[in-house]
Amino acid sequence: MYVILVYDMGEKRVVKMLKLCRQYLNWIQNSVFEGEITEVKLKELLSQAKMFMRPETDSVIIFKSREERWLEKEIIGNEKNDLDTFL
Amino acid sequence: MYVILVYDMGEKRVVKMLKLCRQYLNWIQNSVFEGEITEVKLKELLSQAKMFMRPETDSVIIFKSREERWLEKEIIGNEKNDLDTFL
Repeated sequence: MYVILVYDMGEKRVVKMLKLCRQYLNWIQNSVFEGEITEVKLKELLSQAKMFMRPETDSVIIFKSREERWLEKEIIGNEKNDLDTFL
Repeated sequence: MYVILVYDMGEKRVVKMLKLCRQYLNWIQNSVFEGEITEVKLKELLSQAKMFMRPETDSVIIFKSREERWLEKEIIGNEKNDLDTFL
């Protein structure tokens, strides 16, 4: 399935989350990832995230679509991608 | 149509963008909005955003789906909503 994952985390946990998500998905904006992933791999990602996130302040939202083609994407402005030397 | 809108803006423009998006969509996370919107209203939103955003650093990504039910949403952690007294 195709997912969009967005997170909002305390400053201290942002880099950890970024590195974790990069192992599974493609980075497209500050705290936004997208990509094809299986249910099993997504559960793996989320269970790792739950180990360090603080549920009272942090959040992760996942939008799941069975097919990528059901979602049209429009980008305005600066397009980031994983080739950027961000870290 | 149903859209997810995520933005990444310089600190000085964040509040302006938040206020703009709130006029059209529902706030669900830090810089993430979702909701039903027409093509015309979305164009209106984006043309207003383009008036103050800096394309070399800022970005707005919109995912469009014809039907909300084609997207499944999962939230982990703290669920924000527009009733929060954020501003």
